[in-house]
Amino acid sequence: MGDQTASKSYLDLINDCDNFPWDDPFKPLGNHWSSIYQFHLGADLRPHGLVLESTVKKMPWTQDFKIDHESKKVHLTPLNEDDASISYTTALSKLIQRAIDEDTFAVIHGQHSEPYAIMGANFPASVERYASHLLGIVSRGAHLTVYTNTREGMKIWVPRRSPKLFTYPNCLDTTVAGGVAAGEGPFECIIREAEEEASLSEGQVRKDTVATGCISYIGLNDSRGGGEMGLICPTIIYVYDLEVGEDIICRQNDDEVKEFYLMNVNEVKDALFRGEFKTNSAVIMIDFLIRHGVITSENEKHYAEIMARMHRKLPLPTAPEDI
Amino acid sequence: MGDQTASKSYLDLINDCDNFPWDDPFKPLGNHWSSIYQFHLGADLRPHGLVLESTVKKMPWTQDFKIDHESKKVHLTPLNEDDASISYTTALSKLIQRAIDEDTFAVIHGQHSEPYAIMGANFPASVERYASHLLGIVSRGAHLTVYTNTREGMKIWVPRRSPKLFTYPNCLDTTVAGGVAAGEGPFECIIREAEEEASLSEGQVRKDTVATGCISYIGLNDSRGGGEMGLICPTIIYVYDLEVGEDIICRQNDDEVKEFYLMNVNEVKDALFRGEFKTNSAVIMIDFLIRHGVITSENEKHYAEIMARMHRKLPLPTAPEDI
Repeated sequence: MGDQTASKSYLDLINDCDNFPWDDPFKPLGNHWSSIYQFHLGADLRPHGLVLESTVKKMPWTQDFKIDHESKKVHLTPLNEDDASISYTTALSKLIQRAIDEDTFAVIHGQHSEPYAIMGANFPASVERYASHLLGIVSRGAHLTVYTNTREGMKIWVPRRSPKLFTYPNCLDTTVAGGVAAGEGPFECIIREAEEEASLSEGQVRKDTVATGCISYIGLNDSRGGGEMGLICPTIIYVYDLEVGEDIICRQNDDEVKEFYLMNVNEVKDALFRGEFKTNSAVIMIDFLIRHGVITSENEKHYAEIMARMHRKLPLPTAPEDI
Repeated sequence: MGDQTASKSYLDLINDCDNFPWDDPFKPLGNHWSSIYQFHLGADLRPHGLVLESTVKKMPWTQDFKIDHESKKVHLTPLNEDDASISYTTALSKLIQRAIDEDTFAVIHGQHSEPYAIMGANFPASVERYASHLLGIVSRGAHLTVYTNTREGMKIWVPRRSPKLFTYPNCLDTTVAGGVAAGEGPFECIIREAEEEASLSEGQVRKDTVATGCISYIGLNDSRGGGEMGLICPTIIYVYDLEVGEDIICRQNDDEVKEFYLMNVNEVKDALFRGEFKTNSAVIMIDFLIRHGVITSENEKHYAEIMARMHRKLPLPTAPEDI
């Protein structure tokens, strides 16, 4: 819940989230790359995942997968290739089932999770959320910040996560946040989660929400994320704003949220500096404070660095190939 | 002025602006790096500029500069080092004066230009605008988009550049745009330029303008930029929005702007697709359209790629070192 004595800078908070090393073009490539296997879908030459050597060794690979230790590549080439829109997802499901049956990985914690689309694949393919981290596949989330302009200035609706959650218990969070499930778009995810997490009506969310961009980063799984350490988690989070009147109250509607606070900007900044926010929700809040002119180049010397770091170009495709 | 038959995508427009190659972590470093000399200020180990080999050969270096062809470095170590806050700027001025006297470079076109601060230097240092491109030093600009919400939807004030300008004549541009001069902050630049270019009062600009972030890219100078081709131009542009009432009219106030149009969103998009905007102003407009929910992940498949490419992490420092 944050060390009372520590005070994190905005750049510290970015570093906590985007913690896979950056390469220096004037130096030889860092050896963080040398132990990574590229995960490939069929004949697609573009890697779709970054798998740790330790995962390659532990994974109970099925016959659908070929491991090439020479070129450090994992190829998924389904034995049954009749219909690509089914066969890749099926092969991945079989692999995950085996890993669950054999209880191979702590990050899966012995159960299935919701299917996530593999971004940038040339055909529909999906993989379960926690397994996607083992394969280093891009995860997609969507976050909505709900705020209101009052006489005393802007205030932001900030939930505290339940102490019972597996990941980031008790941390502060974005007003509404969720993973984008296979088959839905980011905005549909927001509409679903806004009702589930904050009791916001679909009508209002559809009418007044503004899409404002996305952030991207490569995180390494740590103890607060749960499971194996150091898994590579390339992530894109679609960002939305919703301005509401002072009459609208965000209320918890499921057991993932403990309670909601209506914080002014200084309270939000103090909670950031104390490290109270979930790692990626801190970055979403920094993005919000930049877009609304609270953090500026005049009051933050690392402004340009922060903007670049929040929008990392992932080394994996985010759109299908133009054919 | 754009090929009438061509239709550029948003990603094409980003590629036109951010056209220095990106490195692929799974391949050896591209040879675009091998011919680049790093420009260093004194004992600072961080490079502050990226100089082409062709520029190193042509430049009439003074005794303040040491060229190390082995390590491919240019070191500025002023002979007179009494006061760092003066000596580096003075040494650079002497170099540029010599290049002007000898008419060495087309990009300088035989005249002085306004001083730009060297971003991230540990002491105040500046270099003339056009010479900064020869040394591959980060340039800083500031762009303000002025818009109004009408019954027919949002409209944006778009100027057309004068046909007499040295760079990007006749192109469409951001409402207000300028280079950040040494000694001023980005917002002060906006206030100055808003009066000069669009007849907007300082009072209104100070009161209602919102800082919303910055874009960053590495451009290679081309024919529309004027002068030597291929110069490396790492750039940061601070981005501002100003919403005005329908009663406010942007009018040209100097000879850099030919005329102003009040365009609706579809007119702006069509002008972008026709390639009518100045290269970096097109990117500023794409950023605006993303932040205002016009371009979304639902209608643009390269959304995540565009967001990352508009916010490139520069291989040069953007803040002084923490000491």
